[in-house]
Amino acid sequence: MATEPRSSERRGGERVAEGTWVPGADGSGFGIEHLPYGVVRPTGEAPRVAVRIGDRALDLAVLADAGLLALPGLSASALRAPALNGFLALGRDVWSETRARLIELLDVRGPGASDVGALGERALVPLAEVEALLPVAVGDYVDFYSSLEHASNLGRIMRPGGDPVLPNWRHLPVAYHGRAGSIVVSGTPIRRPCGQRPPHAPSEVPSFGPERQLDFELELGFVTGPGLPSGARIPAAVADEHIFGFLLLNDWSAREIQRWEAQPLGPFLGKSFATSVAAWITPLEALAAHRVHGAPQDPPPLAYLHTDEPWALEIDLEVAIVPAGSRVELTLSRTNARELYWNAAQQLTHATSGGSALRAGDLFASGAISGLDPGSYGSLIELTSGGSTALQVGDGSRTFLEDGDTVIMRAVAAGGDRRPRLELGEVSGTVLAAAED
Amino acid sequence: MATEPRSSERRGGERVAEGTWVPGADGSGFGIEHLPYGVVRPTGEAPRVAVRIGDRALDLAVLADAGLLALPGLSASALRAPALNGFLALGRDVWSETRARLIELLDVRGPGASDVGALGERALVPLAEVEALLPVAVGDYVDFYSSLEHASNLGRIMRPGGDPVLPNWRHLPVAYHGRAGSIVVSGTPIRRPCGQRPPHAPSEVPSFGPERQLDFELELGFVTGPGLPSGARIPAAVADEHIFGFLLLNDWSAREIQRWEAQPLGPFLGKSFATSVAAWITPLEALAAHRVHGAPQDPPPLAYLHTDEPWALEIDLEVAIVPAGSRVELTLSRTNARELYWNAAQQLTHATSGGSALRAGDLFASGAISGLDPGSYGSLIELTSGGSTALQVGDGSRTFLEDGDTVIMRAVAAGGDRRPRLELGEVSGTVLAAAED
Repeated sequence: MATEPRSSERRGGERVAEGTWVPGADGSGFGIEHLPYGVVRPTGEAPRVAVRIGDRALDLAVLADAGLLALPGLSASALRAPALNGFLALGRDVWSETRARLIELLDVRGPGASDVGALGERALVPLAEVEALLPVAVGDYVDFYSSLEHASNLGRIMRPGGDPVLPNWRHLPVAYHGRAGSIVVSGTPIRRPCGQRPPHAPSEVPSFGPERQLDFELELGFVTGPGLPSGARIPAAVADEHIFGFLLLNDWSAREIQRWEAQPLGPFLGKSFATSVAAWITPLEALAAHRVHGAPQDPPPLAYLHTDEPWALEIDLEVAIVPAGSRVELTLSRTNARELYWNAAQQLTHATSGGSALRAGDLFASGAISGLDPGSYGSLIELTSGGSTALQVGDGSRTFLEDGDTVIMRAVAAGGDRRPRLELGEVSGTVLAAAED
Repeated sequence: MATEPRSSERRGGERVAEGTWVPGADGSGFGIEHLPYGVVRPTGEAPRVAVRIGDRALDLAVLADAGLLALPGLSASALRAPALNGFLALGRDVWSETRARLIELLDVRGPGASDVGALGERALVPLAEVEALLPVAVGDYVDFYSSLEHASNLGRIMRPGGDPVLPNWRHLPVAYHGRAGSIVVSGTPIRRPCGQRPPHAPSEVPSFGPERQLDFELELGFVTGPGLPSGARIPAAVADEHIFGFLLLNDWSAREIQRWEAQPLGPFLGKSFATSVAAWITPLEALAAHRVHGAPQDPPPLAYLHTDEPWALEIDLEVAIVPAGSRVELTLSRTNARELYWNAAQQLTHATSGGSALRAGDLFASGAISGLDPGSYGSLIELTSGGSTALQVGDGSRTFLEDGDTVIMRAVAAGGDRRPRLELGEVSGTVLAAAED
């Protein structure tokens, strides 16, 4: 009688191993069920595509050179590259085949331990010995506004006296384009921007100087492939063909600049000085067991925005701060990505509904993710009611960020009930003083 | 007694020839004083950088191969390329040296007629035999709102009853990021977008379908090099080190979609389906004699936005239409770029004032350029008072664009008083019917 190999089973269409032979990886949040993609540069070498397993980077270019990644359509040039874009351009079938092959190679019961193991630390490099680079050369960066709680909070603060959530908000995922060239990888220091701060009274003039209300926004983004020509559209039902994976994102925000500049054309310099993203992108396939149905939308969205698939993501999110001069990390906020009103499939479908081109490596972010209670807000402007209520932070307090503060965002798809526990790549950044004039 | 060569003189720091040996180029608007840059693909060959002279493309890759462009810092790879970005990255000194050398080679009294002439049509290719490609792989695309007349007109139409020009407008050049991946070269057909059209009453829902108020915006843009890292700023006094050249741009606009979606984060799908740019970029140096001082700004801008140099551009602009089913071209609007309130140096200085990174190949557009009287408005929504007054167009009429309409934008820096006449590369596009669902 033929039997399935005991070491694997099917779940969500994916072959799942019982564990990996890579030491320390099982249960680390970066186990064989995860395998997020990034780009690393070993000391003195060219950048290459890697997946993270435990505290190591599995170098896919080395695997390919050794003949261990011989898959149809997977070119070596896509792996020996300074960004994931070439790999993203190969599309869903190659993504899936590559992931399946990597799981096979890392499976505790498979032959990978000897095949990959024979390559030693050339293939499986300790993370401490590589530089994790910006994983994607982002073509266009779209930032949504998809959390109802965040939109409500911001509306109350930014447009006091008006309707906090505008009439269009429940009919379409509101968004704007951010600055792709200002996207940096986690760990990059963030210089406080200068800019125009609003006048105190209509008869006065604005002042130019360092932003005094520097803020973060806790967001989850996704990157796309293989790309679509202008004029095509992506029905929500096939969004999974185009969404490669998800990553944490900090949409640093300068609230004084934003408040003054953003009418009528939206945020510009208040957002475009820096956006930090994680070094590791979690493939959509790895999240299969963490996809759930979101809360019903009221009113129901128009037909083109209707989704049947479970696109809400059960991912715990957290923002922490290490205040300037301290070494103690303090949690500022905890929420969950499933709180988002508009899901990724709706975002992508809407963004392409007018026929705009989509490229491999385009980035779409959720907008700040806030929950219902104050401890779950995704930005300081919400946590401090527009700066009017200081937060106790260790021995001091904060309304907005001070120079030297480090902001750390983390995301965990919790384990249990046959779901693997995944830690998404974190996003951190330390605020530097504004440039001298 | 030493004399200067009679064939040349200095004007605005540039050596100027009396004419070129290239047949038909003198007086064509694409004479030796102009030399706009583009990227062309001869039939069956790889794309390469070229300048336009008369009705020919001078192939810089062929010149370099023949040893005629041996200049310090000018690499062949920057010329044998699918876009100008590599050349833009070389910076002002190389741009200037290259231009001076090309003028020398094309000078009617110089040796170029035999040196370049010996290469025949390989070097000097009739435009009819090449495809003019999108000249720049645009990194980030910023669209300003720099015409006071346009901002006033739009404000009245989009926010009836409110203040047409918001309090920030006279203090900073308002802008937003557009979609870089939707930028196409002149001649590319433009498919009418579908999208959400606003409900007729607050109690109704929006509808999804083809945009019924498709519009153009007449704009002038500039592209940048060599690029700056994040955190640097560009003082207005050195903006000319970073502004490579100017080009015409049509910011196609879907007014129903825009009106419904754009609060509070600005335009998104109302603009991102397509933006057309000219195939040829006019170097800043070619415009030296056409730079004039703009009208005084009231109130005076903050110090960082102060400009001493003449940054207003004396360039006549025109929008024409060839209505569907017709072969007759009709002028819809005439204005002049000098009408802009905020100039290019102010735009670039403001855009980088917060420290955002700048890349070779970033694009900055003016926003629609309108004059004071109705015949000088840069968009249909202005020309038809929001669609309420149809324009007579041949035998028919238009409020907004119909399928089959071709929109053509032209720009001429007029000659006379020792100023050369330059025709900027035109921008045209024909509207295609919306995609079927």
